[in-house]
Amino acid sequence: MTTFASRHIGPDVDEQAHMLKAIGFGSVDELMDAAVPEVIRWRGGLDLPPAASEEEAVAELRELAGRNRVSRSMIGQGYYGTVTPAVIRRNVLESPAWYTAYTPYQPEISQGRLEALLNFQTMVTDLTGLATANASMLDEGTAAAEAMTVARRASRHKSTVYVVDADTYAQTVAVLRTRAEPLGIELRVLDLASEPLPEEFFGLHLQYPGASGVLADHAGLVELAHERGALVTVAADLLALTLVRAPGEIGADIAAGTTQRFGVPLGFGGPHAGYLAVRAGLERSLPGRLVGVSRDADGASAYRLALQTREQHIRREKATSNICTAQVLLAVMASMYAVYHGPSGLREIAERVHRRAVRLEEGLRTGSEAFFDTVRARVPGRAEAVVAAAAGRGVDLRLVDADTVTVSCDETTTEADLAVVWDAFGVAHPAAAGEHEGGAVERIPAGLRRTSGYLSHPVFNTHHSETGMLRYLRRLADRDYALDRGMIPLGSCTMKLNATTEMEPVSWPEFADIHPYAPASRAAGYEQMVAQLEGWLAEITGYDAVSVQPNAGSQGELSGLLAIRRYHRSRGDEGRTVCLIPSSAHGTNAASAVMAGLRVVVVGCDDRGNVDLADLDAKIEKHAGELAAIMVTYPSTHGVYEAGIADLCAKVHDAGGQVYVDGANLNALVGFARPGRFGADVSHLNLHKTFCIPHGGGGPGVGPVAVRAHLAGFLPGDPLRDGSHAVAAAAHGSAGILPISWAYLRMMGPEGLTAATAVAVLSANYVAARLRDHYPVLYAGAGGLVAHECILDLRPITKAHGVSVDDVAKRLIDYGFHAPTMSFPVAGTLMVEPTESEDLVELDRFCDAMIAIREEIGQVAAGVWPGGNNPLSNAPHTAACVSADEWAYPYPRSVAGFPPGVDRASKYWPPVRRIDGAYGDRNLVCACPSPDAYEGE
Amino acid sequence: MTTFASRHIGPDVDEQAHMLKAIGFGSVDELMDAAVPEVIRWRGGLDLPPAASEEEAVAELRELAGRNRVSRSMIGQGYYGTVTPAVIRRNVLESPAWYTAYTPYQPEISQGRLEALLNFQTMVTDLTGLATANASMLDEGTAAAEAMTVARRASRHKSTVYVVDADTYAQTVAVLRTRAEPLGIELRVLDLASEPLPEEFFGLHLQYPGASGVLADHAGLVELAHERGALVTVAADLLALTLVRAPGEIGADIAAGTTQRFGVPLGFGGPHAGYLAVRAGLERSLPGRLVGVSRDADGASAYRLALQTREQHIRREKATSNICTAQVLLAVMASMYAVYHGPSGLREIAERVHRRAVRLEEGLRTGSEAFFDTVRARVPGRAEAVVAAAAGRGVDLRLVDADTVTVSCDETTTEADLAVVWDAFGVAHPAAAGEHEGGAVERIPAGLRRTSGYLSHPVFNTHHSETGMLRYLRRLADRDYALDRGMIPLGSCTMKLNATTEMEPVSWPEFADIHPYAPASRAAGYEQMVAQLEGWLAEITGYDAVSVQPNAGSQGELSGLLAIRRYHRSRGDEGRTVCLIPSSAHGTNAASAVMAGLRVVVVGCDDRGNVDLADLDAKIEKHAGELAAIMVTYPSTHGVYEAGIADLCAKVHDAGGQVYVDGANLNALVGFARPGRFGADVSHLNLHKTFCIPHGGGGPGVGPVAVRAHLAGFLPGDPLRDGSHAVAAAAHGSAGILPISWAYLRMMGPEGLTAATAVAVLSANYVAARLRDHYPVLYAGAGGLVAHECILDLRPITKAHGVSVDDVAKRLIDYGFHAPTMSFPVAGTLMVEPTESEDLVELDRFCDAMIAIREEIGQVAAGVWPGGNNPLSNAPHTAACVSADEWAYPYPRSVAGFPPGVDRASKYWPPVRRIDGAYGDRNLVCACPSPDAYEGE
Repeated sequence: MTTFASRHIGPDVDEQAHMLKAIGFGSVDELMDAAVPEVIRWRGGLDLPPAASEEEAVAELRELAGRNRVSRSMIGQGYYGTVTPAVIRRNVLESPAWYTAYTPYQPEISQGRLEALLNFQTMVTDLTGLATANASMLDEGTAAAEAMTVARRASRHKSTVYVVDADTYAQTVAVLRTRAEPLGIELRVLDLASEPLPEEFFGLHLQYPGASGVLADHAGLVELAHERGALVTVAADLLALTLVRAPGEIGADIAAGTTQRFGVPLGFGGPHAGYLAVRAGLERSLPGRLVGVSRDADGASAYRLALQTREQHIRREKATSNICTAQVLLAVMASMYAVYHGPSGLREIAERVHRRAVRLEEGLRTGSEAFFDTVRARVPGRAEAVVAAAAGRGVDLRLVDADTVTVSCDETTTEADLAVVWDAFGVAHPAAAGEHEGGAVERIPAGLRRTSGYLSHPVFNTHHSETGMLRYLRRLADRDYALDRGMIPLGSCTMKLNATTEMEPVSWPEFADIHPYAPASRAAGYEQMVAQLEGWLAEITGYDAVSVQPNAGSQGELSGLLAIRRYHRSRGDEGRTVCLIPSSAHGTNAASAVMAGLRVVVVGCDDRGNVDLADLDAKIEKHAGELAAIMVTYPSTHGVYEAGIADLCAKVHDAGGQVYVDGANLNALVGFARPGRFGADVSHLNLHKTFCIPHGGGGPGVGPVAVRAHLAGFLPGDPLRDGSHAVAAAAHGSAGILPISWAYLRMMGPEGLTAATAVAVLSANYVAARLRDHYPVLYAGAGGLVAHECILDLRPITKAHGVSVDDVAKRLIDYGFHAPTMSFPVAGTLMVEPTESEDLVELDRFCDAMIAIREEIGQVAAGVWPGGNNPLSNAPHTAACVSADEWAYPYPRSVAGFPPGVDRASKYWPPVRRIDGAYGDRNLVCACPSPDAYEGE
Repeated sequence: MTTFASRHIGPDVDEQAHMLKAIGFGSVDELMDAAVPEVIRWRGGLDLPPAASEEEAVAELRELAGRNRVSRSMIGQGYYGTVTPAVIRRNVLESPAWYTAYTPYQPEISQGRLEALLNFQTMVTDLTGLATANASMLDEGTAAAEAMTVARRASRHKSTVYVVDADTYAQTVAVLRTRAEPLGIELRVLDLASEPLPEEFFGLHLQYPGASGVLADHAGLVELAHERGALVTVAADLLALTLVRAPGEIGADIAAGTTQRFGVPLGFGGPHAGYLAVRAGLERSLPGRLVGVSRDADGASAYRLALQTREQHIRREKATSNICTAQVLLAVMASMYAVYHGPSGLREIAERVHRRAVRLEEGLRTGSEAFFDTVRARVPGRAEAVVAAAAGRGVDLRLVDADTVTVSCDETTTEADLAVVWDAFGVAHPAAAGEHEGGAVERIPAGLRRTSGYLSHPVFNTHHSETGMLRYLRRLADRDYALDRGMIPLGSCTMKLNATTEMEPVSWPEFADIHPYAPASRAAGYEQMVAQLEGWLAEITGYDAVSVQPNAGSQGELSGLLAIRRYHRSRGDEGRTVCLIPSSAHGTNAASAVMAGLRVVVVGCDDRGNVDLADLDAKIEKHAGELAAIMVTYPSTHGVYEAGIADLCAKVHDAGGQVYVDGANLNALVGFARPGRFGADVSHLNLHKTFCIPHGGGGPGVGPVAVRAHLAGFLPGDPLRDGSHAVAAAAHGSAGILPISWAYLRMMGPEGLTAATAVAVLSANYVAARLRDHYPVLYAGAGGLVAHECILDLRPITKAHGVSVDDVAKRLIDYGFHAPTMSFPVAGTLMVEPTESEDLVELDRFCDAMIAIREEIGQVAAGVWPGGNNPLSNAPHTAACVSADEWAYPYPRSVAGFPPGVDRASKYWPPVRRIDGAYGDRNLVCACPSPDAYEGE
């Protein structure tokens, strides 16, 4: 019978037989016996429910969804009801062209999402009144934490004190606390409405409007902070900023926050795009991804990621942030909400929200004078009763304490909702709303009203009809290359199928429309789903406890390392602060270790790419009493099953250290080896790699952390309950997309998951076998086998013929492919990970293209085509280029545009030619350029 | 506040002001006062509910949906539970690239859907064992009716008797009855299991398997029918055909049926794609659209509609079918279901269904010996009780009569469902299912088992992983041009926005998964929605009663004309059989009249395109006592508000005739004139034009018929209750897509609808004004105004410079547009209908392109480019063409590929060059060509 696994796994039985034959094995069992070292091999099966059909899984998810109760949430605190324009939901959130895309590291085939992200940056800078914004953060809590570290670096102050105003969201304080402690920052929460600022501090965090709803004029505090040499972060509500003075206008250095209420569903806490913006002069301190404008080989304007040398994968332990994945898909949605509504539409929404809040206050008579959308009401002794009364009628309010309730309005709030609130408070309904409709801004003090314009760029003033919006989205999507076009063989990134049945439940209202702080009765289905998923992940990894809170792999790393840190400290081992990291590790590892308060010590690798066990011994000996942990990736970043792993674990344990296994390559282990059972103490997983959450063009990600029992008490906690223990603003992080991985596991079942691993390994070895005669394959394990990816060594070719890794990567675009991972983990190489989802036709198409490119390199080598002016060095070729009236290249147009294997009727044309990144970094432009800038092209 | 209407209507207030200025009016009111003749002007407003927001409309629809009850239907009768593969739902049914496409009359920009339709035809011919299938019919009932008329034409028999076996679906008999009577065909329903065939008859209709579930060997009947000179139609279940002998193998001449159970949701009756296939020799008698293979200007293989001269819009009153719209979107879905499952997957599904039925029968012990999926059980006196017992547990069975129940299994049937059935019958559950799993075909008699292969073409054996399927769908979609890319300014077709909020409810299970013959309690929400929609349409058109049953405009026409015919006959006016039709009418009008048993008499038009009232007088006089009706389009097919319409109506009424106003152009009337109040007696509307149901690439359509009170009794009836009065197989036709029009009306409200009409007229006049100096604009009403479309006269240009309408249409592709309507209603012209949904930027982009093309014509005229070898005659240009190594054309490549206004980064490239239609008709290939056929291209 056709199973989901047979749809998820690309090669069918016949194709697998063909591939096995090509690499000399009789069966996948035989292959896996040979490939996976016996010392780690798990033969106990997986104790998971048997595979459900797609229909059965959907039925179960509908049942879980049915246990959630969609209510009208007026809880606020950074999470608001919002109307996702249907055209954006269908054509972004539900469109494979957007959600299956990868991070735009290959900018020539990512111009669509880069434009959307530039719009996002422009939206943020315009609304915050600051110079430069990045292309999104994980949520408001982590954005605030990154702001704190930007302030730390930029301030020349010796003080380690970071002041946080007490009227800040509790979850933000929790995340700040988590992040401050290991860095030696002292967080001081002060009620600045009554308490004075200290004399010495390096930074100040202000919420705007406050968590209480109060809209305060922070200008005085900002000035004072500046006088004392501190930097100021204003965590501002973007919708409020359409009506109130911008952070930049009151002198803030940094603004941070969330863009959730710009059309992104609540999703029980995420994923949403956080934002971070800085004033001029701080742009090179900005963490995360930054989109900038540059130009291509033909001089056309083109977008690409700017200032990449800032990033942690390059700076490693010198990095000051481990942010890697962002929230691209959600940032695109929020930016498109702004594009669709435009400045006047956004202002109109904000005014409507404000008018509702004003009217609400007129009924509640709280005496509040300055607020935007939230009213704080004192009801001594009655707060619980009031909240319960409203909840009984389907409206959730925020219980602050026994005497206090806050009520937040949003774009979905109706007069009927206000009536429920008034009734719950037992107050009379004020006179009819009519009087207030069309009125001006009423409870925003004159001095705080915004007078400056925003979003004046044409992109925010053009696509306001649904037809126009639809076409803009399609036009951008068509510029990009995503999994819906072809293979994305990115080593370490596991670009596998994101099945539709996994994706569909994300849009269901019962999952989409739940507030993260809703009463437990509203989210019973979510809690059950999360518990099941955490249990299944524990079973797969062999650990004892899992938390899905980390909303990216980087946050999973940090959580795992913090758990180790806390574990040692709980035992009085405060001196254990050294983290060993192999030289081949992903740069994020080192950055995470630093953020977790650990010192990085690098362990070398041997010729075959494996951890040098002798060097390991030496480093362990050297740091004997200081050893906190070792952090290794398994299979290694070289794509090899290292047989020494068990030995390595034992050595570190013997020295009192903990073993962290980075789960980035778990796709090669599921069903065959369990890190929690072969010696590791903690791992983070990437649900957006092994467990099918789509990459979304660079986020959302989910990076659960999994630990052995002795570390279970150190897993992240609910930010509202456990204030020093949260890595994200919501207890379950990006809960809204967990149905994806839930459905994947439910539909694959133990046999399907195991088969997927085997086919992933089979496919990598098949590709290695087909390409080995054309490109040296670096590193291999037992029997010459690789694990789930293989590294093609371009260095001899580059040295001999001048053809670079970049040339091959860009030439692959002409052949209709996304490049493999470039120069990681070894400079000058390409790392190919086919995954189990690519069928034989596509694997062969890729191998054929690589072989054809090798032949082209041969032409360069033979002098037929000059070095520096050949189809490789000039790649990629656009349609405009190959059809230009003049053709001055020393090879025919047909070679440029239609290399072998390219379907003439279905060619993907990149929208721009090779982009000059350095030019853009020298001439930094990180917001939408004026339309004049395109003139004359 | 931003309303839905402001999203639906393209030009905003500023843009409207600009457009008004360009045509010399101060306001839209002023324009409409000038454009719409006072004699028809309605100033009473529309008594419709005020506009709801998108969120409010969705909430109301959710409430309606909530009143439907999704059950497990085992009613069968041509409608079965089916699993729509999620990848197909999301990427076809929910993808604007597929659903906003137009009928593939411009084949160069429709290669994707043409390939999908060729797959559909191949699927049908392979499974039925016949030579040629068309690209879908409206449903099984109409397919059977068309089969009857094919038999009528092809048989040389003088008999007018058409024999229908009694074991045929009741709804099919009802539609056959409706269609037979006006054509003078005598339908004779005989129980051929016991009654003999008559000596004289021209055709025979057999259901296979029968409505009772019985799987009979029809070979003997077929042979006998052939001996007596009759043709045989076998109405076959395509899923059953994977296991049983094909109609072609038992000698059938024609096969007809539905493809619903190939992954198309039930939708309370539709839309689904019917099919029709014929043996060799009958292909030129096949009605409807037929896709064939031809070649393009560069010799590449290409698809296009074949044998178009068969079609009713060309043959007019000589046509033998009025079929125009098909069910392309649903045919694509069904074909992709076959592509995704492949032959072995389909067979596996069929075997599973059959095993369930066998197991069901083992419990019921009916004694049935040969069946596929349906078991008929006799329970004397208990049938109602049995059906009620099962219904109480959520399983619907079919009540045949007081003593008989049938139960049908399908791909969704579970063991639990069978248990409910056994319990309802009060029988013991048979021994465990295990024994039967994997067993062979058990209750299909040896002689009826299929031994021949099917679906061996690679397309059905390649795309079986979800990744592969996703990419195949994207690749095809990318070849096509639909509304999501740009304007489709097709006169008379009203290609306006299909808003996402209108579309989303179509996928909700509460609308998608309701059987058309479900008990009333399951469909209360549907009934309420249909009643509301019919009421709103009556209000808009000024009629007294509406039926949404007709599932295409052609069926609406037929229904309306049948109502007139029946009205006259009910009054004893049997001699009133003449239908006057202006020479400018759409060809379908004439074909419909013939099908309704009327004789067409053509009325001439004057120079200005209006009905020649003098000729009208003459024709009325000539046919005085015979006059049944006049059939006119208003505004006229020339896009003009004819002031004489009231006069025309009066003249016809005075002569005892009825007035039929074709509602194709209702987009120019809504809110401003109501046909039912300015003199007409009956109209059909096109929900897929004025009321936003997407064209789907050539269907689904919905063509409600609206009548004055005296005709209300002659509207179509429920095919299961009123057997001589149905034009579709389900009471509410394509009920599943009615939420689209419901939502449109609900969200626009009376003001929004009225504004849309005004902007549609404004836009047409703006385009006419901008282009008038470059192309003569044919016809206009008062003050030189057109209505909602304008006709550009190319004839002088063609005559003077040899540049044809075709050249301009194909050259528009190079500019990034779909051509306007070509050569209708006047040969040698282009008819442009911008609709209200295109914003000013797009209108100007189109006008600029047309003006630039006129300048190119100037170059030809000036001799700069030779006639017959210039950018127009060689258009469209593919990417392969403009980047070819050799360039022999007398104009630069840049002119060919990047004419003015084309965005270099977002160019739409057609996949093929101009297609040679005649070549394909001479070398007819209407199934997937063997892969070898593409060799050497």
